[in-house]
Amino acid sequence: MNDFRDPSGGGASPIARLVDAFHRLPGIGPKIAQRLAYHVLRAPEEEARDLAEALMEVKRSVVLCARCQNVTAENPCRICSDKGRERTIICVVEEPLDVVAIERTGGFHGLYHVLHGVISPADGVGPEDLKIAELLARIRDVDRDVTEVIVATNPNLEGEATSMYLGRLLRPLGIRVTRLARGLPAGADLEYADDVTLGRALEFRQEV
Amino acid sequence: MNDFRDPSGGGASPIARLVDAFHRLPGIGPKIAQRLAYHVLRAPEEEARDLAEALMEVKRSVVLCARCQNVTAENPCRICSDKGRERTIICVVEEPLDVVAIERTGGFHGLYHVLHGVISPADGVGPEDLKIAELLARIRDVDRDVTEVIVATNPNLEGEATSMYLGRLLRPLGIRVTRLARGLPAGADLEYADDVTLGRALEFRQEV
Repeated sequence: MNDFRDPSGGGASPIARLVDAFHRLPGIGPKIAQRLAYHVLRAPEEEARDLAEALMEVKRSVVLCARCQNVTAENPCRICSDKGRERTIICVVEEPLDVVAIERTGGFHGLYHVLHGVISPADGVGPEDLKIAELLARIRDVDRDVTEVIVATNPNLEGEATSMYLGRLLRPLGIRVTRLARGLPAGADLEYADDVTLGRALEFRQEV
Repeated sequence: MNDFRDPSGGGASPIARLVDAFHRLPGIGPKIAQRLAYHVLRAPEEEARDLAEALMEVKRSVVLCARCQNVTAENPCRICSDKGRERTIICVVEEPLDVVAIERTGGFHGLYHVLHGVISPADGVGPEDLKIAELLARIRDVDRDVTEVIVATNPNLEGEATSMYLGRLLRPLGIRVTRLARGLPAGADLEYADDVTLGRALEFRQEV
């Protein structure tokens, strides 16, 4: 993305710096970074200012909710302080975006807890690196009515390991620990389903 | 991209505003905007500040070069003021990124002129909306040694129309007007070449 350097005036040109800054974002390659920078050049100044201010504002004002550890500008967050939510059930997710995804289904009305990762020995991530102590503390001190924890980690090796770990940890406290159903995705075609998915759909077959 | 609104605290939350600001960039859909905003949340503050400052700096300091109309922080731009460039030949391009692409080839050592668009009657863009008057003025007043103009517009309807228009305009001034060669791209396979490309490759066949 240094291609902009010559035409625009040397190694430290403002355009090259903007291209570099866009390029550092995940999934933004050098070509897209160039296109974004060029778009900003042509766009109204207020569009650039909106983005610049939103960037600084997010870093200044967004914290982790003291209860659920989700990102929030209010502490506790809107969901934790919403009197209308069921307070007997906590859905544990890996990342804040998973909360967004589950909220979108409209099918869950309890509380959340964001782990900010999964147990992954290969990456050197153990339970102590996640917000698991915070989950225990909150069940013990704040959300004492919780009777069920749904572990909504991703259906992969790390997600399964994390859900098993949480199961062993929480069941002795008298809490029911469940996980998201495994099976065929909506609209799937048996013929093209992968073996693991189809195998699990058989294993976890449900009553009609 | 308003999905972040509930979990993070209402319609005007800092996260929702950042998602919106990213979403306004070209090619950044709501999902990617969410992922970028979430990345910024976790990234070191200086990464967000670098991007925010680069955005403001670019709007503050980048102007169009008075000669070639390319975006630049110095006026005239580095290329226009580079004594080592051939001053008898101008390559006319549609956009600043085209200058980047041609510089990358290392095969052109003349000057540039950026039109900032192409003639496109369907979009209501006429010659007066482009930097064509500036091209004429500069050939007349500043770059008087120019003997050739390469019209490096894109090989499509609008690009061809623009190159024909410039040809009619500049040839009477005694300037040679050329365009980029049409033909098969490097590494192409005849069997899979589209009809128009193959037709042009035949029409503009070159001596071996």
